[in-house]
Amino acid sequence: MTQTWFLDPCPAPSPAHSQAALERQNALTKPQGSLGILEDLAVRLAALQQTEQPKADRVPVILFAGDHGVAAQGVSAYPSAVTVEMLRNFANGGAAICVLARTLGLPLEVIDAGTLGAGEIAGVHTDKPRCATRDFSAERAMSEEELAFALAAGQRALARSRDHKPDLVILGEMGIGNTTSAAAIAAALLGVAPRDIVGAGTGVDADGIARKATVIADALALHQLATPSIEAIDVLACVGGLEIAALTGAIIAAAQARIPVLIDGFIVTAAALAATRLNPSCRDWLLFSHRSREQGHRLVLDALQAEPILDLRLRLGEGSGAAAALPVLRLACALHAQMATFAEAQVSGKA
Amino acid sequence: MTQTWFLDPCPAPSPAHSQAALERQNALTKPQGSLGILEDLAVRLAALQQTEQPKADRVPVILFAGDHGVAAQGVSAYPSAVTVEMLRNFANGGAAICVLARTLGLPLEVIDAGTLGAGEIAGVHTDKPRCATRDFSAERAMSEEELAFALAAGQRALARSRDHKPDLVILGEMGIGNTTSAAAIAAALLGVAPRDIVGAGTGVDADGIARKATVIADALALHQLATPSIEAIDVLACVGGLEIAALTGAIIAAAQARIPVLIDGFIVTAAALAATRLNPSCRDWLLFSHRSREQGHRLVLDALQAEPILDLRLRLGEGSGAAAALPVLRLACALHAQMATFAEAQVSGKA
Repeated sequence: MTQTWFLDPCPAPSPAHSQAALERQNALTKPQGSLGILEDLAVRLAALQQTEQPKADRVPVILFAGDHGVAAQGVSAYPSAVTVEMLRNFANGGAAICVLARTLGLPLEVIDAGTLGAGEIAGVHTDKPRCATRDFSAERAMSEEELAFALAAGQRALARSRDHKPDLVILGEMGIGNTTSAAAIAAALLGVAPRDIVGAGTGVDADGIARKATVIADALALHQLATPSIEAIDVLACVGGLEIAALTGAIIAAAQARIPVLIDGFIVTAAALAATRLNPSCRDWLLFSHRSREQGHRLVLDALQAEPILDLRLRLGEGSGAAAALPVLRLACALHAQMATFAEAQVSGKA
Repeated sequence: MTQTWFLDPCPAPSPAHSQAALERQNALTKPQGSLGILEDLAVRLAALQQTEQPKADRVPVILFAGDHGVAAQGVSAYPSAVTVEMLRNFANGGAAICVLARTLGLPLEVIDAGTLGAGEIAGVHTDKPRCATRDFSAERAMSEEELAFALAAGQRALARSRDHKPDLVILGEMGIGNTTSAAAIAAALLGVAPRDIVGAGTGVDADGIARKATVIADALALHQLATPSIEAIDVLACVGGLEIAALTGAIIAAAQARIPVLIDGFIVTAAALAATRLNPSCRDWLLFSHRSREQGHRLVLDALQAEPILDLRLRLGEGSGAAAALPVLRLACALHAQMATFAEAQVSGKA
């Protein structure tokens, strides 16, 4: 691959701002640590945003959609046609992420990063190298050039989102078959058996889950991905998705631009795993919004040493879990900025 | 006790509205169940509010403060003076719950239900039978009349909150020593050893936790509360707190008035346990906001068969965990009301 922008290092968070934020938290009128994760989030955001007053006000949502050749292997409960149908639902404001974005005041951009859709859909930004990946049970999901295009599509989307002057960004996805691709990526990068990482996705039964595991195990063998030294770039090309590659590119581009990313569920977390393997310096910029019900999510979160904010048994995707967690970040910022200190309120300290 | 208003039955939720809400959830453009707890909350609220369109917009916060004679036994990391100092902090808007209430647009009423404060504080509603409970390590915390007064103070506060036409209410508390009282109530009602239920409270060390357990165990023996058939009313009188009794009264009064209550952390959950023992029909009206870091909380939640929304390692009280969970309820309501159905969006169903 001739492009290497995604290997450029991401800046480090500011230890000075982290320390100052921690000292402020410890001076506020509450027992130290009693606001738990709310304190941690304010301190993390202060270090990332290099500020005394972390914010989570301006938060664009970028949603990438793609189709998957492997869907032909019967790995999803829904037909591939649903991906494009859902693009229209996103454009019309009827999907879960649309409602969440409206309610929370978040700009939403939907990108066709590789669906089967032949034409343009009003309200959807099209930026794809091909329609759907190839069926990775038989051949590589995408060529090197197609992967480079998809990674750069993520970078381009992130660049557009900067018009909103984001405090952080939320990334979402939609694509029938993409839990299978995400599970294949995670199984290859973590070196775990596919049966330990596949889940119900949109709602397949036990037979469907077993079929997903077999399809993935066979594909990992076919593409010779079951080796400890496997490169993330090869994993993405062999079993990835165009929307997952775009997520990977967007995550790295955000971190390079000092923009924290609120990571959603299983698919986005698999993209985050790939991103940290490609470019470990992006890890500091990731906040993890929730633990999904998709069973493989726990393994990927553990590998990333991530402590998610919520556990609401979600398994929808679209960025919905990240959006649901955003109010917690906003409250953490408000508490950090507005609570009185012991000195200001003339409240006694410990006995 | 001559008053028995709190024994009057609470109405039942509406099965018809529950069923209609579930059917709507199953028609929305997402795999069934994929919004997890967000779906459950919308369905629960629809049944409680007897509506097609559950809401969590108008949510008064009622905070009860009280002092505890048992604080003299060295069970808290902070002096009792902090309770009244925090009343001023509440009145001045500097405490965590003030920031959360402002950010979320919630009216906040703070009630001195029994602090050591001698005078009135502007911005605080005073409604107390005495200043602080008696030290329950030596005598009953309150008389029957004082308990009746405190329960009714909760009922009165709930009645005032109805001016806001609440969709639900949040109850909070503040009181140096009140994790000790709450642990004593829970240990007595659940029949568990105090050492299994006491925690760090505002931040006592291991010695302090052991001291709390001993103080409680001795008190349960003194008041003969360690019997399976013990009545909740006796437990509240012997080892309760005035703010905890007020919470108990407010919970029952809310349920009697068909107003759901978003339960906060350890103290409010202990009050909820007492309320359900006094009047089991109130249980349906309780939603549980979070699992706190206070170790006894898990036992009390389990006894109430409660699945909390959040787990953010909070241990502050004040209603802060309930406020932090409120945006999740609001998003659940927005999704329920605004998402498109499969038919409306012309999205295909399962393959």
